[in-house]
Amino acid sequence: MLRAVDLITKKRDGGELTQAEIAFFVEGLTSGVIPDYQVAAWAMAVFFRGMTARETTYLTLAMAASGDLLDLSDTVKLAVDKHSTGGVGDKVTLVVEPLVASCGVPMGKMSGRGLGFSGGTIDKLESIPGFRTALTTAEFKAQLKRIGVVLTGQSGNLTPADGKLYALRDVTGTVNSIPLIASSVMSKKIAGGAQAIVLDVKVGTGAFMPTVAEAVKLADAMVAIGRHAQRRTVALIADMNQPLGHAVGNALEVREAIDTLHGGGPADFREHCLVVAAHLLVLARHARGLPAARAELLRALDGGAAWAKFKQLVAAQGGDVDAVEHPERLPAARFVEVVPAPRSGILSRVDAREIGLSSVDLGAGRATKADKIDHAVGLVIHHKVGDHIRRGEPLFTVHANAADRLAAARSRVLAAHRIGARAVQPLPLFYKTLKSH
Amino acid sequence: MLRAVDLITKKRDGGELTQAEIAFFVEGLTSGVIPDYQVAAWAMAVFFRGMTARETTYLTLAMAASGDLLDLSDTVKLAVDKHSTGGVGDKVTLVVEPLVASCGVPMGKMSGRGLGFSGGTIDKLESIPGFRTALTTAEFKAQLKRIGVVLTGQSGNLTPADGKLYALRDVTGTVNSIPLIASSVMSKKIAGGAQAIVLDVKVGTGAFMPTVAEAVKLADAMVAIGRHAQRRTVALIADMNQPLGHAVGNALEVREAIDTLHGGGPADFREHCLVVAAHLLVLARHARGLPAARAELLRALDGGAAWAKFKQLVAAQGGDVDAVEHPERLPAARFVEVVPAPRSGILSRVDAREIGLSSVDLGAGRATKADKIDHAVGLVIHHKVGDHIRRGEPLFTVHANAADRLAAARSRVLAAHRIGARAVQPLPLFYKTLKSH
Repeated sequence: MLRAVDLITKKRDGGELTQAEIAFFVEGLTSGVIPDYQVAAWAMAVFFRGMTARETTYLTLAMAASGDLLDLSDTVKLAVDKHSTGGVGDKVTLVVEPLVASCGVPMGKMSGRGLGFSGGTIDKLESIPGFRTALTTAEFKAQLKRIGVVLTGQSGNLTPADGKLYALRDVTGTVNSIPLIASSVMSKKIAGGAQAIVLDVKVGTGAFMPTVAEAVKLADAMVAIGRHAQRRTVALIADMNQPLGHAVGNALEVREAIDTLHGGGPADFREHCLVVAAHLLVLARHARGLPAARAELLRALDGGAAWAKFKQLVAAQGGDVDAVEHPERLPAARFVEVVPAPRSGILSRVDAREIGLSSVDLGAGRATKADKIDHAVGLVIHHKVGDHIRRGEPLFTVHANAADRLAAARSRVLAAHRIGARAVQPLPLFYKTLKSH
Repeated sequence: MLRAVDLITKKRDGGELTQAEIAFFVEGLTSGVIPDYQVAAWAMAVFFRGMTARETTYLTLAMAASGDLLDLSDTVKLAVDKHSTGGVGDKVTLVVEPLVASCGVPMGKMSGRGLGFSGGTIDKLESIPGFRTALTTAEFKAQLKRIGVVLTGQSGNLTPADGKLYALRDVTGTVNSIPLIASSVMSKKIAGGAQAIVLDVKVGTGAFMPTVAEAVKLADAMVAIGRHAQRRTVALIADMNQPLGHAVGNALEVREAIDTLHGGGPADFREHCLVVAAHLLVLARHARGLPAARAELLRALDGGAAWAKFKQLVAAQGGDVDAVEHPERLPAARFVEVVPAPRSGILSRVDAREIGLSSVDLGAGRATKADKIDHAVGLVIHHKVGDHIRRGEPLFTVHANAADRLAAARSRVLAAHRIGARAVQPLPLFYKTLKSH
């Protein structure tokens, strides 16, 4: 008979758990038969010993199977999904989903809320008046079939094991374990019905992975799960040392996404979206290769199809279409202050983490899960690392609803910028691409 | 403000916890403010990272302070105590306590019960009809003052933090951590009022520490706590590859202790007791050195003073003095079978662990905490490693209360003996002595 303490000891001593052992453990943690203290000790043993790709896959599949499994096979030909490990100014989903859908590849996605310096897609969408982010599974499937695009919060009873395990890891110092992070991400994607997955793994000060080497380890672990679980998976290692695009904050990011869907938007953000979307078109077997995918995406973006699809999405989920057609109607802050560059020179650093934390201080994010979000506030960072700056030109803009918070953000964000005399190379958008196949 | 998760993370990352942090943690685990899952994760982090001597001392003192602290300063001049890490046939306390007390050094001791292959002093004492092992603290102190010797189970609310932590370690794969074992032992000694301590650290198949190197690590950790906590401590590393003495089982061990208190008993056991007792007399500042202590102990043992003190102890705690004067009146088994040696040769192995487990199978010990003990049953192992054996001479004797158990013990204990042709050195009694001072 399997006993939890024996599985803990086996992992503690560097053993490889079998599929049956991991299934027993995940069932026990879901049902509560295995108490939290044994799960916590096991998680700490995993932190120190790691898990093989096989173990990580078994854990992923067991967690996916711990609750509802969304079956999209009667809804789409091949279900593709994307996931970002989170960052500052990461509004990629807002553009990529309607863009890909407008090319004829349906995309239904469940997104999360932000916590800490990292924003969440659902919070951003909720800055559109009326937009419903709590669809039922039936609504999800019906809308995906009808218009080919859905963006909602997690619906149904998906991966309860992951939910319980994550809550426990959060309070036991076992969040930063690569196999546990990888299986958490992949279990949610698989439970959501994804057959092919693009992972947008951020690296840098504004990401959970601080170095490219760490990010590659995480991406490797997730891609290996994709391989073992027969889900074709591509992982992009993307820079998050400076914010993505210019806008940080919910309504501000929606506006920037709208600009981009109109064919405009910040160059780095537009390019990031095109790369992610191209991989999705290829994984969906819609495009033969990345160049063909890109050509089609450019037509959809610059020809208005992506924007039309976005409006369709907003309308379908009860959002105020007029507000996205006239973004000045989206929530706006009382105080808007443009902060000028204090000196001339070359921008060598725009610390994404500091900017993310500053936006949380303004009210755009949550320091704890219970915090409420102010959709109007945030920051617009006008420049990128490597830019030549002239003294007095706009460096960033603060959108605040309280004077004291504005002042705090002004000095914190100013300190997050570094302007020097020496030439600095722009940061790359992507460092590496990993594939399961 | 201190948060448990930060202490877990600090330990996980190899940091050294401060006295305040450890006190916070121990208070939290005692009161339940820190939930079990955080304690479990911390214990697993300690398993992997270890603890410094300072941390281990802080943990020991905090656990000792988590409940009642016995103060013997109004009862004895200098409170000495001994502790054995547990073994097979380890009845040392039964002899050493009255022996030391008979030399004029009072010894009051709280002992434990047996679990697994390792017997417990309290179980052994309870084979004496009427012997009370649950004295109150007031009774403990009064008896210690009056006759200078007490042997009881843990009284009062001693080291509740250790009790909770041990119960949790038992089910989370974190028992085998040297700093956690060391602090558990030393916290109980310190809470029991000990000012100087002799540690009898067993090593071998019948001990928790399988190798001398491991036993020295544990002894080192405990001696370091003694040094930091200003309790003079001596640790003896003692052999437990074969049983100590001949008898294994409760009433059988009491009889062997009685023989020894009469100046007889097995040579190895008598010598082991003399060494432990000599260190106690020296630590108590009663004897100038080990040779003087030994001379005094030999007089007490061979002159009848130790035996008289033992009878005083039995009488004081309500035991049947007539039964220890006539040990044939102690509980006896229905079946007693002498098993002859199957061949002639030299004894190269008498596996203490197998013999301990076999005595548990007979009913002399507990496989789980809830099991009841049969005081009558057990084994008498007639020979020691290195002995020349002649075919047909008694190899061991089984005392059983069920025929099937007798048969099982016969074959298991026979297999635990190995008789070969080559000469074999006797096993040493002690490997090493460590001192805090």
